[in-house]
Amino acid sequence: MGLIVQKFGGTSVGSVERIGQVADKVAKFRAQGHDLIVVVSAMSGETNRLIDLAHAVQERPVPREMDTLISTGEQVTTALLSMALDVRGVKAKSYNGSQVRILTDDAHTKARIREIDDKRLRAGLDEGYVLVVAGFQGVDEHGNITTLGRGGSDTTAVALAAALKADECQIYTDVDGVYTTDPRVVDGARRLDRITFEEMLEMASMGSKVLQIRAVEFAGKYQVPLRVLHSFKEGPGTLITLEDATQMETPTIAGIAFNRDEAKLTILGVPDMPGIAHKILGPIGDANIEVDVIVQNTGEDKHTDFSFTVSRTDLPRAMDVLQSVAGQIGAREVRSDARIAKVSVVGVGMRSHAGVASQMFAALAEVGINIQMITTSEIKISVIIEEKFLELAVRSLHSSFGLDKEPNDEGAA
Amino acid sequence: MGLIVQKFGGTSVGSVERIGQVADKVAKFRAQGHDLIVVVSAMSGETNRLIDLAHAVQERPVPREMDTLISTGEQVTTALLSMALDVRGVKAKSYNGSQVRILTDDAHTKARIREIDDKRLRAGLDEGYVLVVAGFQGVDEHGNITTLGRGGSDTTAVALAAALKADECQIYTDVDGVYTTDPRVVDGARRLDRITFEEMLEMASMGSKVLQIRAVEFAGKYQVPLRVLHSFKEGPGTLITLEDATQMETPTIAGIAFNRDEAKLTILGVPDMPGIAHKILGPIGDANIEVDVIVQNTGEDKHTDFSFTVSRTDLPRAMDVLQSVAGQIGAREVRSDARIAKVSVVGVGMRSHAGVASQMFAALAEVGINIQMITTSEIKISVIIEEKFLELAVRSLHSSFGLDKEPNDEGAA
Repeated sequence: MGLIVQKFGGTSVGSVERIGQVADKVAKFRAQGHDLIVVVSAMSGETNRLIDLAHAVQERPVPREMDTLISTGEQVTTALLSMALDVRGVKAKSYNGSQVRILTDDAHTKARIREIDDKRLRAGLDEGYVLVVAGFQGVDEHGNITTLGRGGSDTTAVALAAALKADECQIYTDVDGVYTTDPRVVDGARRLDRITFEEMLEMASMGSKVLQIRAVEFAGKYQVPLRVLHSFKEGPGTLITLEDATQMETPTIAGIAFNRDEAKLTILGVPDMPGIAHKILGPIGDANIEVDVIVQNTGEDKHTDFSFTVSRTDLPRAMDVLQSVAGQIGAREVRSDARIAKVSVVGVGMRSHAGVASQMFAALAEVGINIQMITTSEIKISVIIEEKFLELAVRSLHSSFGLDKEPNDEGAA
Repeated sequence: MGLIVQKFGGTSVGSVERIGQVADKVAKFRAQGHDLIVVVSAMSGETNRLIDLAHAVQERPVPREMDTLISTGEQVTTALLSMALDVRGVKAKSYNGSQVRILTDDAHTKARIREIDDKRLRAGLDEGYVLVVAGFQGVDEHGNITTLGRGGSDTTAVALAAALKADECQIYTDVDGVYTTDPRVVDGARRLDRITFEEMLEMASMGSKVLQIRAVEFAGKYQVPLRVLHSFKEGPGTLITLEDATQMETPTIAGIAFNRDEAKLTILGVPDMPGIAHKILGPIGDANIEVDVIVQNTGEDKHTDFSFTVSRTDLPRAMDVLQSVAGQIGAREVRSDARIAKVSVVGVGMRSHAGVASQMFAALAEVGINIQMITTSEIKISVIIEEKFLELAVRSLHSSFGLDKEPNDEGAA
């Protein structure tokens, strides 16, 4: 028994029937004696319907009014779920962002939460209600309605859990947890019982889009235990926690992440002098192109080669920028390659275990995969390889690091 | 130049195109230098869509959640109209009931307005915005969302006009004003330039459903000049005001109202003793049946006849109740007649002009219409007649009281 914040996304509440299924699940937790705050998104399709209406009125809708408009989607769901809970004999009460009061800054359509007033929610819990809160929205200090942007409902859930010091924040999704890698690529991919916030961040940024990065960062910062579960299947899901000191044998590697949405640019024969990286990447940033991996080799002959990756959709624009930069700085040549992929091994365990990098490179060499770029962080090693080798690389690494095997038989919390 | 509150109903904002037309109209008033508050309903169909969703979840939806649900409809319109105004270069800002703050009691789905905070609206006007306010909704003192029930948006408009001491409250509808009688019945029916609140109330209660009675009462109480206009046609509409002392020649009669939705019940041979009316109507009221005209004749032989009218749809239930009452009080017989109609002449002028009643009865006698029941108030005389004579009666009265003729040629304000 404790306080649990649960979050259900648009697909989970996409119809009256699904709202009923969510109500069943919530009622079951309630029957176990938990205090519950349930955060919901708009019914799937509803937000797009509203956005279409806005665009039919105005090409670039006034952001303040856009927020007023689309925030109604979540409010509708809170009312319907509260009714569905009432049908099941569970006292429930809906709250929109203003009623909670979720105070945000005034950056309409991408506001950041500043403060959550827990007074009304505490009162509601004390009166024995299940609180159904509209995700994705808040109000600024002048009472204007704001929305939090993509993944905002996850953020709402984590923020409420932090503000009310919930025992757990459960994010219900269409997957039953976080996996060692994509099960569509590796048959032996396993659901992880636990993963650390840092590992989750690295996995998430690589395309494992189970959770919004922002929500994970938030949960990590405020130490909110976060659990990813399937909306309609039973199961313990994956618990995302701080590094657990009680776990004596932290597995070295949590999982293998990958991403095939990037493209590589290389500028050859760059004069090797201070400020050259800025001269290359400055104009790229000015063009609003995000850069991921950056590698510069030590040069010989006062010249160096400089490579970086961008999103594939940005490649043509990045090439244009880079061609003109190359002329200005007197570089020899610019090359690009869209047929690349990034593969990473992720794990807090690599901090204390030497040899992860060499094991990774050995595994790739064994199956004949050439590494084009390498970049490392404290808990992640990423390589850029030819795209056609992606599946082979992921499978080799998954097996090389023993991820196919079940770890010690400890169940999930 | 002054402050005008304008209200547009669901049909007027029923599509993106219509919202655009409303925005054109508002922009035109704005260009004339007026300060404007625009009250809007939900897009037609939207409230029903939401109610259907609620009923799919719960047979009798929790009233608090019903209000949370359906209040989103108006909020959507406020955002879209604000965008449409922005497109036209008019600075506009949406406000929901909580943002205004329209404080109501906590009677969900039929709340009454208690107080309107004019601070935020004044600030918005001072900053040069057109304020687009969600009709039909408010918040109770605990911040719960409430709705005002049928015709609530008219009430919102009038209440805002009263709170901000607006120069005029304009209600845009699908008719171009209030008529001397129904133009479908009498070719010569004329639009009235002016009508008093009291006359409007009597006309409205008789089926001239241009305005919600509640809004008219409210406007009368707070002396808000109210104007009924057509949403998409040009024209001065009808101004509803206090009795205007500057008008030397108040026409005797403002109009002829009628209603064919009623049925008559008569209980014959009722013992004539104190409390008998209560014994008859008490059980009718307990059955939630509303009674309109009530007539009791002075009895002879210690017995009396008692008649009243109810809505036709309530007739079968009313008969059941009355049969059982008749047995208990020892009445002789119960009769009913659904083929009746009520015709009324309405006008504050009849206060000071004797002979209106006799002129009315003479006009009906002249065309051979028998009067079944008569009831009078200070500014209205109503008769119950056989339904088939309704059109004939209305035409005769319209002509007899000179309503076909144009009054003095003073234009509308």
